[in-house]
Amino acid sequence: MLGIGDDAAAWQPSRSHLSVITSDALVDGVHFVTGSMDARSIGHRAMAANLSDIAAMGARPVLATVVLGVAAATTQEWMLEAYRGMAALAAEHRTRIVGGDIVRMPAASLSLTLVGEVARTRLKTRSGGRPGDVLAVTGPLGASRAGLELTLRPRDLDAAAQGAALAAFATPRPRVREGRWLAASTYVHAMMDLSDGLSTDGGRLARASGCGAEIGELPIAPAARSVALAAGDDPHRYALDGGEDFELLIAAAPRAFAHLAGAYAKHFGRPLFAIGRLTAEPGLRSIDPLERRELVAAGWDHFTSETGTARSRPS
Amino acid sequence: MLGIGDDAAAWQPSRSHLSVITSDALVDGVHFVTGSMDARSIGHRAMAANLSDIAAMGARPVLATVVLGVAAATTQEWMLEAYRGMAALAAEHRTRIVGGDIVRMPAASLSLTLVGEVARTRLKTRSGGRPGDVLAVTGPLGASRAGLELTLRPRDLDAAAQGAALAAFATPRPRVREGRWLAASTYVHAMMDLSDGLSTDGGRLARASGCGAEIGELPIAPAARSVALAAGDDPHRYALDGGEDFELLIAAAPRAFAHLAGAYAKHFGRPLFAIGRLTAEPGLRSIDPLERRELVAAGWDHFTSETGTARSRPS
Repeated sequence: MLGIGDDAAAWQPSRSHLSVITSDALVDGVHFVTGSMDARSIGHRAMAANLSDIAAMGARPVLATVVLGVAAATTQEWMLEAYRGMAALAAEHRTRIVGGDIVRMPAASLSLTLVGEVARTRLKTRSGGRPGDVLAVTGPLGASRAGLELTLRPRDLDAAAQGAALAAFATPRPRVREGRWLAASTYVHAMMDLSDGLSTDGGRLARASGCGAEIGELPIAPAARSVALAAGDDPHRYALDGGEDFELLIAAAPRAFAHLAGAYAKHFGRPLFAIGRLTAEPGLRSIDPLERRELVAAGWDHFTSETGTARSRPS
Repeated sequence: MLGIGDDAAAWQPSRSHLSVITSDALVDGVHFVTGSMDARSIGHRAMAANLSDIAAMGARPVLATVVLGVAAATTQEWMLEAYRGMAALAAEHRTRIVGGDIVRMPAASLSLTLVGEVARTRLKTRSGGRPGDVLAVTGPLGASRAGLELTLRPRDLDAAAQGAALAAFATPRPRVREGRWLAASTYVHAMMDLSDGLSTDGGRLARASGCGAEIGELPIAPAARSVALAAGDDPHRYALDGGEDFELLIAAAPRAFAHLAGAYAKHFGRPLFAIGRLTAEPGLRSIDPLERRELVAAGWDHFTSETGTARSRPS
């Protein structure tokens, strides 16, 4: 493999696999605020968001390129720390940063591209779900939203909840191993990652599969409960609308789900949480007994589809 | 191939080839000025810069991802036009835009990643040059610098020179076919594209090859002569220091050069211009009889190596 320093980096792709590619950017003042988060965490989050997209395809990440946008106020130390945050998480997943570009920008930014590989028979998309499929997530939800709340408005909470919420927000763990494991099962019909919130992403998976969805009781992260209660918020909304949990959402064959969930729990020591099912009828509905109604997508979307104007992410 | 709309795009890479990847960004106010260039040209230039890096490896471009940075003042029409500029040039080179991201930024920007393919035996790098190798370029230099001058300070010139200079600056043609043709020759020892100016990039190729270089008379684009004379500038400096000509620079075996240049001219109907040679002695020197001296890199560099602070590109 030929890395940084030439016009492009070169590598030998696996002869038996498909390649996958994703690009995603974080911008100061939009996706993070330089002053309220350390550079290493910002680098980590940028890498996590892209690794999570690779995980959602069932693929193994292989390499990354980075375009680092540098503002007038950006210090060399900030750049190095952001790079270290990216490189450390990439290394955990045996992913090499092979090149990129450094450009002047009015705001600091990290624009990443990741390439991965997956066997053709294991590639998962959003569109393979079928009516009746069980919807499930790889972990409890809402902790990243709780960490955002604590970052914006620091509070005195018990140290465990505080630490868990801030870690979920600053250094989320992309579900790369879980994605590859789930991709090996033919019972997993569709998969995506929860980057913009379940109420938004759940609707996307359902629509891509030509289905609707019913969402029942959600696994709410303990940290999300603690922070939401302290902030006077509804913890259920943190879990439903909060973005950047980076858990995986799957649609799985209903007959095989119990077996799949059992094997998952045995392998990872954590449960696979059933949260609802795909329906033939379109739309996203709550079947939580406390909240039986039509769900409105309230997570992050880059642009409101009506107006085409930008809407700012709540971070 | 699975394209836009899922977490990542998927494709089947060639089983017998290496893959190559490059990322490069253009930012409003740094690499272009929204008001002084139409959006379609800006999109074209961003795609051209990345295609040129793929060409420099001797590779065939396959696909691209685009992260579009959208400022408050960016209109939907601007975004569409910039996209059309990228897509049209990509289509000329059978390259698909398979995905990406749209993010809010304080300034409009285009951050592109391109993936290409090349047979392992044809991959060209900057580091394969040897002392005595002939340095050559695929076309006359300086026209893009002339177009920049006309964009900044419009002048009354003959229409042909004006059109050629503005086209070279706004819609440069990446040398993809030329790169692949040159890559097929084992007499071509090293290759790179001229994006930052010959005085900068020539030094890079020489250093990467463990050599120095002597630069003789340069092929100066007629438009560069006309504009430089009208502006009271030295046309030789346009050719030597002007960036973004996107011609390819090669180091070729001296015994085979006449044969290579003849075959190139026959194939493309344009000459391959010898401009100097690699030397065992380090450093970049002019052997132009009018200017026999040490050359100082005066093209674009992203950061001055001494201070680590950003320096703005002259566009």
